[in-house]
Order: sequence, then C-alpha cells, then structure tokens
Amino acid sequence: MDGKLFDARFGEYTAAVEAYLSGLFEEKAAERLPWGRLYESMSYSVMSGGKRIRPMLTLECARLGGIRDWRTALPFACALELVHTYSLIHDDLPCMDDDELRRGKPTNHVVFGETMATLAGDALQAEAYRLIARASELTDAAKVDAVLALSRASGADGMVAGQVLDLTGYGHDRETLTTLCDKKTGFMLKAAAELGCAAAGAPEELRGALAEYASRLGLAFQIRDDLLDVTGDEKTFGKPIGSDREEGKITFVDVLGVDGCAREVSRLTEEAVAALDGVEGGDFLIHLAHRLSERDR
Amino acid sequence: MDGKLFDARFGEYTAAVEAYLSGLFEEKAAERLPWGRLYESMSYSVMSGGKRIRPMLTLECARLGGIRDWRTALPFACALELVHTYSLIHDDLPCMDDDELRRGKPTNHVVFGETMATLAGDALQAEAYRLIARASELTDAAKVDAVLALSRASGADGMVAGQVLDLTGYGHDRETLTTLCDKKTGFMLKAAAELGCAAAGAPEELRGALAEYASRLGLAFQIRDDLLDVTGDEKTFGKPIGSDREEGKITFVDVLGVDGCAREVSRLTEEAVAALDGVEGGDFLIHLAHRLSERDR
Repeated sequence: MDGKLFDARFGEYTAAVEAYLSGLFEEKAAERLPWGRLYESMSYSVMSGGKRIRPMLTLECARLGGIRDWRTALPFACALELVHTYSLIHDDLPCMDDDELRRGKPTNHVVFGETMATLAGDALQAEAYRLIARASELTDAAKVDAVLALSRASGADGMVAGQVLDLTGYGHDRETLTTLCDKKTGFMLKAAAELGCAAAGAPEELRGALAEYASRLGLAFQIRDDLLDVTGDEKTFGKPIGSDREEGKITFVDVLGVDGCAREVSRLTEEAVAALDGVEGGDFLIHLAHRLSERDR
Repeated sequence: MDGKLFDARFGEYTAAVEAYLSGLFEEKAAERLPWGRLYESMSYSVMSGGKRIRPMLTLECARLGGIRDWRTALPFACALELVHTYSLIHDDLPCMDDDELRRGKPTNHVVFGETMATLAGDALQAEAYRLIARASELTDAAKVDAVLALSRASGADGMVAGQVLDLTGYGHDRETLTTLCDKKTGFMLKAAAELGCAAAGAPEELRGALAEYASRLGLAFQIRDDLLDVTGDEKTFGKPIGSDREEGKITFVDVLGVDGCAREVSRLTEEAVAALDGVEGGDFLIHLAHRLSERDR
C-alpha cells in the first residue's frame, strides 16, 4: 500500500466518522429540547477535531474481519469515540487534571461550567451503549461482545483504574508506568480493535492478533504523547508544553529520557507491526502504526 | 396476598440483591489492587442501605414475565442499581447539589474526595453494562434489550436530562415538574420493569402494563419524596429536612401544597394499581405501590 492509497482510506474513515457523529447532534439540535444545552456541551467536545484513531481502528478491524460493508460498524466505532470523549471531559475537570486547553480549544468545563461538563460526560457514556444496542445491521451476539469489550476496557479495572493510578502518583518506574498507560490508553485501543472484530464476527485468531497490535500501538501512542509534552510545538500539539511536569507527573521521559522514549516508540511500533504477521491485508494498519509513531499532534 | 407473604418475598428479593452486590466487591477487595480505593468508594455508596426498590421491581417483573428462576435476572437488577448509585454520587457532588448527607451517612465525596467520587460514579456506570453483558444465563436478545432500556432511561434524554432540568430551575409548575420528575425518577423505574421483562422475554402486552405501572409509581415516589422533605423526620428520612427549600428548588409541595401532594400520591398509586388490571399474580406489586405511598424514608 502506497502513501496515497493509505491517505485515501484514512480520509474515507475520518469523513464517515465525522458525518456519523455530527448527524447524531444535528438531529437533536433540531428538536430544540429544554435540555438542549446538554447536547451542545456533548457536541462541543465530540466534534472538537479529535484524531479519530480509535474509531478508525474499529472500522479497519471490521474490514479485516470480513464485514460486508465497514460502514455498518460505524455505531460501534462511534460508541467507543463517545466513551473516549467522556473520559477527556472528566479528566480535564478541576477535580482531576484541571486543564484549560484541549486540542487547542478551551476545555468543556471552561465553556459550559463544571456541572454541565460532568453531566455531558455522564450522558456520553450512556449514549455510547445506546448506539451499540441500536446498531441496526449487526447481530445481538456482536452487540453483546461489543458491550462487554467496551465496558471492560473503560471500567473499574480499565480506563478509570488508569486514571486513579495517574492521579495518585502510582507510576514512578518503567513497570508501573506501563501498567498505568496500558489501563489509561492501551485498553481502549485494544477495545477499538475488539469492537471491529465483534462487528465482523471475526475468527478468534484474528481477534488475538489485532488486539495485540492495538495494545502495542496504545503504549507507543502514550509514550509519543509524553515525548511531545516535552519536545512538541504548543500550537500543533494543541495543549501547553510541559504541563505534565508542571502537574508534578512522572512520565516515560523521566524514566527513559528523550532518546530512550524515541527508541521505545520504535520498538513498540515494530512489535505492533509484527503482531500483524499472517494477517492478510494488514498494510493499512502497518502504515498507521508508522504514521502515529512520527506524529506531532 | 397478605402482609406476611408480601414481607417474605420483599425480604427474599432484598437479601438476594444485597448478597449479589456485596459479592461483587468482596471478590475485588480480596485482590488488593493498587486502585483498590476506587472499589472502596464504589462499594461505600452501593452498600449504603438503599431501599433496593428498583432491582426488586426488575426481579418481580422477571417473575411475572415467566422467567424460570428470578435469580437469573439478578445481574440485570443489580446493573440498574449500579447506575442509580452512580447518579446519586454525582448528584451529591459540590458542582451539583453539594449534599453532605445521604441515607444518614456522609456522601461519597465527603469521605473519598471529589476526584474519587467522580471516578467511582464513572466506573459504576461502565460496570453496570459489564454486568448485563456477562449475565451467564440470559440470552443475547435479552441483554441487548436491557442495554437499550437502561441507556435510554439514564442517558441524554433520560435521567441526565432530568438532572439538567433540575439544576437549571426548569420545574416551576405542575407540567414542568412532572416532565422533570419523569426523567429524573420515572424513567429509571420504568427501566427497572423493562429489564425484568427483557430477562424473562415477556410478551409485549405485559411489558406495556408493567412499564405503565412503574412510571406511575416513579412519579408517586418523587412526590412522596418532596413531601417527606417538608414533613419528614430527619433521622428516619436520612437527609436534612427542608433541604429542597434551602437550595431554592421549587417542588410539588410548592405547586400542590402538602394536602395536594398527599392526594396526588394516592391518585398516582391508584393509577399504578389500575395498570395491573389483567396482570395475573400482580398482587405483590399492588402491595408494593401501597407501601411506597405510605413510606417515611
């Protein structure tokens, strides 16, 4: 797969996700509900220019899993993006990381207030499961698989546990930071792959390979993030440089150094690619892993 | 059904729910996880002596729907109770109602801090869907039904919308207060009935009757709550008397008066009971409606 073909598919996935998500909110805005401000708050964060890596992973895994039309997996892909978005809104709250900037824009609670931001996150989580349950062209078995994968990845032993570990200063060496990042980032990327496989009813072996790919990708992604927090350009990165340090957080840069982080991102990216050995048509995901390892936002 | 038989079944349901819920947390406490404090916070609120009306409704509706053993519906019943509990934790937060007492005990954020309370609520919501997806003795179709009912009732057009309306002072007359209470309380009680019917694969007609019963019950329940906030005994009621007024909230007592509220609770209870016309074996629910209309906590 050459870069042009990759870009074309990348663009197709992104456009489909954007259209699906904005469709959800346009419908609601038209209803002029007395609680319309809640939808404005939800929409503000969901439509704020995320990279859509997670839903893209779901769609590509559904395609690799043999789904007839990857578009039928959009409800699963976007459900995961809603859960991801809720976690960002809550992570930014004053009682959490107290961040005022996200993707170059004021965070949700800065615009809508703490109350509405908390409620928007709560509602996004519920709406994610509603999207899965309502997916009209997928089987009940696929939906149950998806609910299980998403709730496990985002719940009390997954993403929320990662946030607890992050806020309580658990990560202080390579091992503890890896546990923390796996939970905070890796689990959700793995779930993205699992949701795609669930939508397609993919065979076990393929599920295993794609989940392994996504886990490695997630860790590489987080280390790249830590690196950008030190070496990045504020305008491109979309949030203040050095904010981790300012918050007193220990990151992979403290433990591995800048060069060590760069090497670790390369190593994990190679492992991610190696997990795709024997996966037919995995070239889009190989490209994606390399692109993400070089990203600057 | 005489009072003794009612009490026996009531006790059996409550004991089963308590045992199931505490089992979830005992298992986790034994694991001594680095994020164990999260589970402590979740457990604190889940095991804090709630009335368990919602899960009881799920279990009884499953029984009426013809389920072979109502115990198989426990995961659905307890999933709903977890969502209910998350909503109480978040409602009590400083950025919401800022309450310090719930069921006679300090609220979650008073004990665990705002950060952990927010995360405990977030995790409880995810764990609810995990319980549904993992319910070992129920069909995929039942699980999808349950996820849909629960997410619709609790999401952006349901319980969260109710909380938005409540916090923005939407309720000011009988009509707007009814909309608000339907969303904040009625929808979740209706969902409790729906989850029971889903578990049992109950026929459409029965689902309609039980949902109608639960909706009326929910409204009566909320009006009784407003009444107790004025006329109740603080020690029995478990929270300060007059707190609604102190927070400047308009309630049914303002709109209907104390006597008007009492009459409305009676009327709605009769409507709830009337919805059970033609439901065979509905006597437990009839008793339950009368009991709740007279409750003082």
